[in-house]
Amino acid sequence: MESIRPGYPPIERKATTFDPEALQRLLDGDQVEIRDRVKQLITQPEFRYYEGTDVEGYRDQVLQWVKQIADAGIGRIGLPRSLGGEENPAKFIAAAETLAFHDFSLVIKLGVQYGLFGGSIQLLGTEYHHKKYLPDCASAKLMGCFAMTEIGHGSNVQALETTATYEKATDTFVINSPTYSAGKTFIGNAGRDGRVATVFAQLEVNGQNHGVHAFLVPVRDDNGKALPGIRIEDNDVKLGLNGVDNGQIWFDHIRIPRIEMLNRFADVTDSGQYVSAIQSPSARFFTMIGTLVGGRVSIAAGSNNVCKSALTIAIRYAARRRQFGSSASVTVSASEDRPTGDPHSHSLETLLLDYPAHQRRLLPPLATVFAIDFALKHLIQQLGSTRTGDRRSFETKAAGIKAFATWNATRTIQTCRECCGGEGYIAANRLAALKADTDICTTFEGDNTVLMQLVAKNLLSKFKEKIKGMQPAQIGRFFFDQKLDALFKQNPIFRRNENEEHLLDSEFHLTIMQFRESAILLSCAQEFRESAKTKDVFSAFTIMQRQMLELAHAYVERVILERFLEAISKVNDHSLTKTLEHLSQLFALSQIESNRAWYLEHGVFSGAKARAITRLVDKLCREVRNEAVALVDSFGIPDSCLAAPIALE
Amino acid sequence: MESIRPGYPPIERKATTFDPEALQRLLDGDQVEIRDRVKQLITQPEFRYYEGTDVEGYRDQVLQWVKQIADAGIGRIGLPRSLGGEENPAKFIAAAETLAFHDFSLVIKLGVQYGLFGGSIQLLGTEYHHKKYLPDCASAKLMGCFAMTEIGHGSNVQALETTATYEKATDTFVINSPTYSAGKTFIGNAGRDGRVATVFAQLEVNGQNHGVHAFLVPVRDDNGKALPGIRIEDNDVKLGLNGVDNGQIWFDHIRIPRIEMLNRFADVTDSGQYVSAIQSPSARFFTMIGTLVGGRVSIAAGSNNVCKSALTIAIRYAARRRQFGSSASVTVSASEDRPTGDPHSHSLETLLLDYPAHQRRLLPPLATVFAIDFALKHLIQQLGSTRTGDRRSFETKAAGIKAFATWNATRTIQTCRECCGGEGYIAANRLAALKADTDICTTFEGDNTVLMQLVAKNLLSKFKEKIKGMQPAQIGRFFFDQKLDALFKQNPIFRRNENEEHLLDSEFHLTIMQFRESAILLSCAQEFRESAKTKDVFSAFTIMQRQMLELAHAYVERVILERFLEAISKVNDHSLTKTLEHLSQLFALSQIESNRAWYLEHGVFSGAKARAITRLVDKLCREVRNEAVALVDSFGIPDSCLAAPIALE
Repeated sequence: MESIRPGYPPIERKATTFDPEALQRLLDGDQVEIRDRVKQLITQPEFRYYEGTDVEGYRDQVLQWVKQIADAGIGRIGLPRSLGGEENPAKFIAAAETLAFHDFSLVIKLGVQYGLFGGSIQLLGTEYHHKKYLPDCASAKLMGCFAMTEIGHGSNVQALETTATYEKATDTFVINSPTYSAGKTFIGNAGRDGRVATVFAQLEVNGQNHGVHAFLVPVRDDNGKALPGIRIEDNDVKLGLNGVDNGQIWFDHIRIPRIEMLNRFADVTDSGQYVSAIQSPSARFFTMIGTLVGGRVSIAAGSNNVCKSALTIAIRYAARRRQFGSSASVTVSASEDRPTGDPHSHSLETLLLDYPAHQRRLLPPLATVFAIDFALKHLIQQLGSTRTGDRRSFETKAAGIKAFATWNATRTIQTCRECCGGEGYIAANRLAALKADTDICTTFEGDNTVLMQLVAKNLLSKFKEKIKGMQPAQIGRFFFDQKLDALFKQNPIFRRNENEEHLLDSEFHLTIMQFRESAILLSCAQEFRESAKTKDVFSAFTIMQRQMLELAHAYVERVILERFLEAISKVNDHSLTKTLEHLSQLFALSQIESNRAWYLEHGVFSGAKARAITRLVDKLCREVRNEAVALVDSFGIPDSCLAAPIALE
Repeated sequence: MESIRPGYPPIERKATTFDPEALQRLLDGDQVEIRDRVKQLITQPEFRYYEGTDVEGYRDQVLQWVKQIADAGIGRIGLPRSLGGEENPAKFIAAAETLAFHDFSLVIKLGVQYGLFGGSIQLLGTEYHHKKYLPDCASAKLMGCFAMTEIGHGSNVQALETTATYEKATDTFVINSPTYSAGKTFIGNAGRDGRVATVFAQLEVNGQNHGVHAFLVPVRDDNGKALPGIRIEDNDVKLGLNGVDNGQIWFDHIRIPRIEMLNRFADVTDSGQYVSAIQSPSARFFTMIGTLVGGRVSIAAGSNNVCKSALTIAIRYAARRRQFGSSASVTVSASEDRPTGDPHSHSLETLLLDYPAHQRRLLPPLATVFAIDFALKHLIQQLGSTRTGDRRSFETKAAGIKAFATWNATRTIQTCRECCGGEGYIAANRLAALKADTDICTTFEGDNTVLMQLVAKNLLSKFKEKIKGMQPAQIGRFFFDQKLDALFKQNPIFRRNENEEHLLDSEFHLTIMQFRESAILLSCAQEFRESAKTKDVFSAFTIMQRQMLELAHAYVERVILERFLEAISKVNDHSLTKTLEHLSQLFALSQIESNRAWYLEHGVFSGAKARAITRLVDKLCREVRNEAVALVDSFGIPDSCLAAPIALE
């Protein structure tokens, strides 16, 4: 009565038409060296998962891991070259992504330390701050906080209540929390380990408010005791991420030297005057906040990798768990030559992965994870060059993809839990932790709903700029480019075309998604113009919030597909291209399927065409099912990270 | 710097058009006495939530609560009258439902003890078993297990591996786990507290297998030590429900006296012969399993009540949390006379509940929870009379509503967490526990996907019986009754009718849902008939799994609406009727909206009509928003149970 589990039918890996290692090389991309280095580290015995339920013990463990990561030189990657760093955000994100295969509390604590605390000093501060803080930040000798969010204000950062009042007599800023709701909250490292915080506060100079600026404020002494005038409360137990010590901070008229203001974009001069090279307060605020966009990209990348772990566990489980029926009599698999039984199975029931409903639950999300991965690669590549490129367009993309990726992760990990039944509920099988730890990703670094509205607003602003001065007829021509125009000229055929070749064509997918996005954009613009006649801008946007969110979704889906297709077009390995094409078809068609009501409502598809798409998604699921185990193998997740008994041989 | 939170705008409760207490009386229904008694109990100081993270401490606490519940006489409710009980399952479910406002581990441990262990003895056993076990079960002196699920078989109970072999010489059954995968798993009370288990095993008499039967097997001695030949392993930490001690059990040739077989439906005689009044082995199996349908109803009711707690927390939070904009300039609320500011707010930003997207996320689920509640009331009422009524029809309804209610709970509680942002992630605000503890409801007491297939199969069988011998033309006439026929005769008008009165009409909602259900049923029947020509039944069903699930969903949605409307029609209070009508409109139209692709594909709606329905859902959300706080007040959840600081004054 050994504790054995049924093995995989060997066919699951043998039948694959592509080389999983080649696909892994493609996914690892340029950053293979750092990914391998991180994997080497997290598979050491010291990195075995914390198994207790005690929060303090878990925090100790994660802090120790942070120090080991720092000792391995990973904190130095983002540092300026002048301080011995590599100034390589793409490499740092690749490290964080790989760590996401392990423990997400560790990823977040590192993100707070390097991305937020270190990042704010580097991007908002100047040489004095860099030299004073960054080396100790990189070595994790000085643990820091990023104190932006307040009890009263999370999403609406411009309305923060904490004040930083410049006092001429002492040449200091007085940092103060005037109310309970001005308290900083959910601040990582504030609960226990942080010594210094980047504090966002309303700057007042000579009685005048200049909006939110950042300041470096010591919060604890070397022994970890809160400094006088600093009140700290622990955020205590959370749904997940209990390895991170989140806390609340209130400041009671804390004085800091003038030089501790992060003064890259604005400063207070020796003579006590406020100066900034950016004239508009709003532009200044968004410039400061915008420098932190890397955090959003990292969160999207991290949660997408956690999603890969969940899919690996659920797909491997489904590839050997049998329930009901007899495989001898079932041919639901696409390939007729799949064996009807195998020596490893102890019964002849049907594999979960051979049920169409199970394929429907797991495989479109699998395709989506690949699509997001390639879209993120593109975004990370641009991250280095954002200072010169089209900043707003980049921020729009980052916000939208962050929202899409994190929503997808939450939904998909939940589905994976359900697909593993009771086994998915057992903590040892890790889906509980994967779900709980990433659940907050839809909220932090920008609440997803707020981000999607930002996306829609940016699209509308850009549209407004482009059509300035045009006549209505011109707008239409400008708007629907030739390809879309052609689509509509052929409409009678197009509406009804159920030809499989047509439906699988990536040109069709992209065109139809672009069409939807453009049509919603145009309709939103018209609705806003009407509405703004009688309402202020905020109210006009608010009443059309549903339509705005629809626009943002249409945009993000199109952008992700576009990036995925672009990446595929660059692949030289024929069998790999074929596999990726299947995934892009499944991604695109399952998105189109879930939006088919829109296409039907707007007369773009006939009912028969919409139904044909649904049947084609079924078929693509059957095809991708045959490569599912090899596809998750290509994620290259170390077994010690997966850890789930149901996912291991 | 007191820890104050903004209060509710008083208008949230004053503007209400109905009396929340009257609505609570309607929800409490016949069982108000037991509900009040349970509330009285769980609001005592001893019932304050366990705050540690230690699993053993939590299990101790829950066991102690179980004893207190038993001492209060609640275990006796389900007992046969001959043993001093009330034999009142509806009352017991009302008690469990109310306990679900408190701690779901407690509900499940009680469910295992009374519903499953006690229930199996009562419904599958006879007088000997009743007298021997039930009094100690009721007083919680004897804690018991319900050992059905095995490592290798969860959903497919007929394929269990555990054997019970009758041995003539000793007049005993030998209970044995022949393999690792035959081990019982996820068995509540098995981890620590259980002493006796109802064990489901393949009965073999004289070398012949008679299928799965139930036996009472002692598993631990009085000191809690596993008995010789019994191997027990703890299921350890789980995603949630850590107050319940789930465990695994293997039996090594354990002998039990013949009398310990639960012999109501089948027995082994003194002379060692197998006898049963039910001839068909399959009918016998389903009769035995079917007696346990009460568990499904209880799980649905319990998780729907947890969902009420989550909605109460999220809606109360949204009714005083402000973010962005200025309420002075926003009129997104339906009633123009709502105040634009109030003395309790410390700023003039917009309430979350006034954002259309927030309304869309929370209010259709609120309406759904009401709809499910009334559908469950109907089901519970029928529970008492199932032995005489149409058993299969009742089981179909129970399976479908269980799946619908638990999926709705998981999705809605997740949404509530996200709607509360960072606050929703803090354990003290309870959404984490509500989600984690109910997450398994979609899996246990029948995996939802398996249950929905069962629903669809039952609908197809019933259909097959009804049309037996009919000609195709007759089938059509039989199938689409006059109302549906009329709908189609008026089709040109009906397809395009965007009139609000028409769209809000409950007759329209029900008719259109019935039409969808019937059309999918007919198409599934045709598809099955085609497919069964070349495939065995299992395969034929499997390849059309997506369509089967669609049929089951269409059926359940229709049943729930029907029951909700029926309940509303019996209400005599005009203002209450009006409020409930709004809720039923929102429930029905948001279901129809989410299935609008189907209606469009099948030419039932024009695109314009579908879009009008979407706009009407927006409008209904604005209307229901005005009563949202009063509606969650009507759930009557004690503050000490809600416990979340963000939900309290």
